Amino acid sequence: MAVVLPFEPNEPSIDALVRLVKADMERVNAAILARTGSDVAMIPEVANHLISSGGKRLRPMLTLACAALSGYEGDGHIKLSASVEFMHTATLLHDDVVDESDMRRGKLAARKLWGNEASVLVGDFLLGQAFKMMVEVGSLTCLDILSNAASVIAEGEVMQLAAAKNTQTSEDDYLAVIRGKTAELFAAACEVGAVLGQRPKAEQAACRSYGMNLGIAFQLVDDALDYGGNQTKLGKNVGDDFREGKITLPVLLAFRRGDESERAFWQKCLENGEVTDADLKQAIALLMKHRALADTVERARHYGAMAKDALALFPASPAKSALKSALSQAVDFCLARAH
Amino acid sequence: MAVVLPFEPNEPSIDALVRLVKADMERVNAAILARTGSDVAMIPEVANHLISSGGKRLRPMLTLACAALSGYEGDGHIKLSASVEFMHTATLLHDDVVDESDMRRGKLAARKLWGNEASVLVGDFLLGQAFKMMVEVGSLTCLDILSNAASVIAEGEVMQLAAAKNTQTSEDDYLAVIRGKTAELFAAACEVGAVLGQRPKAEQAACRSYGMNLGIAFQLVDDALDYGGNQTKLGKNVGDDFREGKITLPVLLAFRRGDESERAFWQKCLENGEVTDADLKQAIALLMKHRALADTVERARHYGAMAKDALALFPASPAKSALKSALSQAVDFCLARAH
Repeated sequence: MAVVLPFEPNEPSIDALVRLVKADMERVNAAILARTGSDVAMIPEVANHLISSGGKRLRPMLTLACAALSGYEGDGHIKLSASVEFMHTATLLHDDVVDESDMRRGKLAARKLWGNEASVLVGDFLLGQAFKMMVEVGSLTCLDILSNAASVIAEGEVMQLAAAKNTQTSEDDYLAVIRGKTAELFAAACEVGAVLGQRPKAEQAACRSYGMNLGIAFQLVDDALDYGGNQTKLGKNVGDDFREGKITLPVLLAFRRGDESERAFWQKCLENGEVTDADLKQAIALLMKHRALADTVERARHYGAMAKDALALFPASPAKSALKSALSQAVDFCLARAH
Repeated sequence: MAVVLPFEPNEPSIDALVRLVKADMERVNAAILARTGSDVAMIPEVANHLISSGGKRLRPMLTLACAALSGYEGDGHIKLSASVEFMHTATLLHDDVVDESDMRRGKLAARKLWGNEASVLVGDFLLGQAFKMMVEVGSLTCLDILSNAASVIAEGEVMQLAAAKNTQTSEDDYLAVIRGKTAELFAAACEVGAVLGQRPKAEQAACRSYGMNLGIAFQLVDDALDYGGNQTKLGKNVGDDFREGKITLPVLLAFRRGDESERAFWQKCLENGEVTDADLKQAIALLMKHRALADTVERARHYGAMAKDALALFPASPAKSALKSALSQAVDFCLARAH
C-alpha cells in the first residue's frame, strides 16, 4: 500500500539541518521545558506527553535556520522558535479534540488520557505562553506575523470543518485549507527568522515563500501517506482521514477521475461516515487505479520546487551555502516521506 | 430559592458606567463586528451567536473607563477593549466544550448548534484576532499584561478541572482557581487602560487591584447564583455547577459545616456525578441550613469593598469623580445580582 515513486539512491535527510542548528536547538528545548512548567501539575504532564513524543521539531528548526541564514546574532530566535513549537503543539491538542483522534505520533492522544477538557485548556495555556515569549522578544513585526498566523491557522481549520464530507470541494478550496491549517505556520516560522536578521523585504519574503511552499508540500505528502503509509512511521492509523470524512487531494482526484458508480461509493463513505475495512481497501484500490496518490505527491514536488527556488535569492556565501543546502535537503526529506 | 440579603432601597446599576463610555463602546462594537468577519462563513456565524447574545460587555467597559480615568486620549483603548472581549468570548466557547454545557446566556450553546469542533476552532480564531488587535495598538506592556492573562486564565481553568469533584478542595485553592479563570481578565482589562494613559505605577496597580477584586466578587456571586438564581436571569440552568461536580465556595462551606451524613451526601453527588432533582433540592436545603449562599455573598462583599478602596487612590477631580463613582457602582451592581 506504499506510494510508488521512482527509486532515488541517496535517501534525503534532515541530518544536515539538524546538525547546523543543534546548539541553538538545545536552548530551544530548554525554553520549551521551562515554559511548560506550572504549579498545576496537569499542565506539564499533558504538554510534555505530546512535546516529548518524538516530533521532529521541524518548525522551530526552520526559524533557527532562517535566522542564521539572515545573519542574526541576538537571542530572540530561541524564544520565537519555542513559540512556534508551542503554537504547533496547541494546534495538535485542539485538532485531536476536533477530529476525535485516538492516536498521535504513535502514542495515545492526550485527550484519551486526560480528556477533551485538558486538551482544550492546555492548548490554550501553551498559546498564552507562546505569546508571552514573543512579547519578551519584543519585535512587533514578529508579533504581527505570528498573531496573524494564529488567526489564519484557526480559519483554515474551520474551513476544513465546513468542507468536511463535501465531495464537491475543489482543488483550490483544498489548497486554501492546507495553506491555512499547515503552511501558514511554516511560512511564519521562516519569515520571523529573516525579520530578526533585519534582512531586506525581498529576503524576508523569500523565507516566507520557502516556508509556505514547503508547508504545502508537507501536507500533500501527509495526505497521501494517510492512505498509503506505514502505521508505525505514521504514528496514526492508515485511513483516519477516510474514516473522518476529510476531503483531501487524493480523494478529490479519485472522485473527479472516477465514473458515476465510483463517485457514489466516495459519497456514501465520506458523507455517511460509516466505513468498513473493505471500504478502505476499495478506496485505496480506486486511488491506485486513478494514480491519485502518485499525482498528489507529484503536486507536492511542484511546491517543493517552488520552496527551493525561493531560497535561491539569498546571496551565496560560504557560510550561507551550507544552510541553503540543508534547507533544500529538508524539502527533499519531506517529499521522500512518501516512499 | 433566591439568596436572601438585606433589602436596599436604591437598586445599584451599571447605567452610569454605560453612559460614560457609550461613545467609545460604539466604536468597540464596530471593531468587534469587523474583526469577526471572515470569508469562512461559519466563523462570523458562531462568533456572533455568542457575541450578540446580550452579554453586558463589562470587561471592555472597564478598559474604556480605566483609560478615561487615566486621561488617555489616543485610539488604542478601542482595539484593546475589543481584544479583551474576544479573549472572554474565546474562553466561553472553550468552557462550553469543557463543561459540556447546553445553554449560555439563555440561548443554546454554540457547541449544540455547530458542534464542539467549531467552538474550539472559532475560539482559537478569536484569540488570534485578539492578539492581532493588541499588536496593532503596539504597546509591549499591554501585550505583556494580556498575553500573561491568557496563560493565567487557562491555568485557572486547568486547576478547576483538577479540583473537580474533590470535596477536600480548600477555600484558598478555590480562590486560586477563580483568580485565574475569572478575575485575571478583569484585572488585565483595567490595568491596560491605566497603562495606555501612562499613569504612575501605583495608579496602574490600583486599576489592576480594582479589576482583580471586582472579578473575584463577580465570580463568587455567580457561584451563589448557580444554586439560587432565576433561570431566565442566569441564562443557564440552576444547579449546573452541582451536576458538573464543580466545587464552588457555597459547596465548600456547606461541606465543611456539615455533619458526617451531610458530607457523605455531597461526596456521593459531586464525586459520582449522578444527581437527581431531589438531590439538587436537598443540596439547596443544606446550603440554606448552613448559610452557605449568604456567606458566599458576604465574602463577595469583602472583595467588592477592596475593589472600591483600590480606586480611592486616584486623585479626585471633577472630571474623574464621575468615573470613579460609576466604577464604584459597578461593584455594587455585581454584588446586587445576588438579590
